[in-house]
Amino acid sequence: MRKGEQTRQDIIRKAAPIFNQKGYDGAALSDLMRATGLEKGGIYRHFESKEELAGDAFDHAWKVAMDARFEATDEIPNTVDRLKQIVRNFRDRRTGLVPGGCPLLNTAIDSDDGNPQLRAKARQALSSLLDRLQSIADEGQRRGEVRADVDSAKLATLIASTLEGSIMVSRLQKKEEPRDLAVRHLEEYLETRVRSRKSKAGATKSSVLRKFPGKRTSGNAQRRTTFPSRG
Amino acid sequence: MRKGEQTRQDIIRKAAPIFNQKGYDGAALSDLMRATGLEKGGIYRHFESKEELAGDAFDHAWKVAMDARFEATDEIPNTVDRLKQIVRNFRDRRTGLVPGGCPLLNTAIDSDDGNPQLRAKARQALSSLLDRLQSIADEGQRRGEVRADVDSAKLATLIASTLEGSIMVSRLQKKEEPRDLAVRHLEEYLETRVRSRKSKAGATKSSVLRKFPGKRTSGNAQRRTTFPSRG
Repeated sequence: MRKGEQTRQDIIRKAAPIFNQKGYDGAALSDLMRATGLEKGGIYRHFESKEELAGDAFDHAWKVAMDARFEATDEIPNTVDRLKQIVRNFRDRRTGLVPGGCPLLNTAIDSDDGNPQLRAKARQALSSLLDRLQSIADEGQRRGEVRADVDSAKLATLIASTLEGSIMVSRLQKKEEPRDLAVRHLEEYLETRVRSRKSKAGATKSSVLRKFPGKRTSGNAQRRTTFPSRG
Repeated sequence: MRKGEQTRQDIIRKAAPIFNQKGYDGAALSDLMRATGLEKGGIYRHFESKEELAGDAFDHAWKVAMDARFEATDEIPNTVDRLKQIVRNFRDRRTGLVPGGCPLLNTAIDSDDGNPQLRAKARQALSSLLDRLQSIADEGQRRGEVRADVDSAKLATLIASTLEGSIMVSRLQKKEEPRDLAVRHLEEYLETRVRSRKSKAGATKSSVLRKFPGKRTSGNAQRRTTFPSRG
């Protein structure tokens, strides 16, 4: 990597928490200078505008978040188990994330009535999340693991909405419970409304369920695992 | 009302959309002057600081939102039907709201890493919403309309999280569907997981269900209404 490009990446990495915490308007030049240790000229030699820097900072924060949420999920063979693990990752895999909460939630709200470039970034980010969730559900339907009557696009939207809302509530209350509730609610939903009977019958034998026996699943989900024929 | 107080209320009402749309840092003095038709001195004669004005603007926007969401729900006799109507109101009663989306969501994100006064307002607003939802569920449990095993505080949190998240996604996508999905998901959840059998048996006879037969309810909820004994 050329030195200029290295400095550029370094600025993006250090500016990302400022934008994610303070928003576009709230991120002052003095904050960016303090975080990067550079003067105005040293920063803006690498970026055409604050908008460009904010956009790159968002892309960085979002990539880190998506990597954490989908980490090691490709290898989970059953698609419903995979979706459940992704949902749990929203709660459990948060070390190394860019501080300030979910970049999508923050940027969606921040750019809501202005800043079309950032808005476009947030829309694209949401689409990428929904597409990934939907394609897993589609794969599950082709394999008979996901009920045929499940609308995969709607399922993806419901998962993303529920998790993002719970992040807002959790952060505002400074409590883990709202996020945990949303995760357990979605786990139960995936188990009882999304998983097909065929998949359910096999579920208790899957390596994923054996690996985490009863861990953090809700009472209902556990009951259902014990009596799979009831679902 | 004294003239000074009238002007003050007028400023709050006109400033509220600016703060709700642009956030605290984004709301420039020039925006506030344009919206109110007053000079800086004319505005700040009535408020000690931008923080005070923003706080009052939030209180106003939140009151309007809460009034709309709980409008005419006190008179619904069955508590589960009442909760369902409140959930639907998040989708359906939006005329007259302060433009810019849910003030709670906006202010929670906006004040997330700074502005402790606004943050306290947002926390208080969330508490008031959760308390109202929880007390309806508590009342339902005392009356046997809500299952005894439902945790009313958790139910309130799940409802608020799910709706707020769907508002973010809907606004970002400029589509009604995410919000509608969340509403129908919660309606089904209330019907199948929260309503007690006793209440369910009587539900089809309630005036509320007769008043809106099958309107906007999900396929599942409708099926359950048709075969109440299955739930």
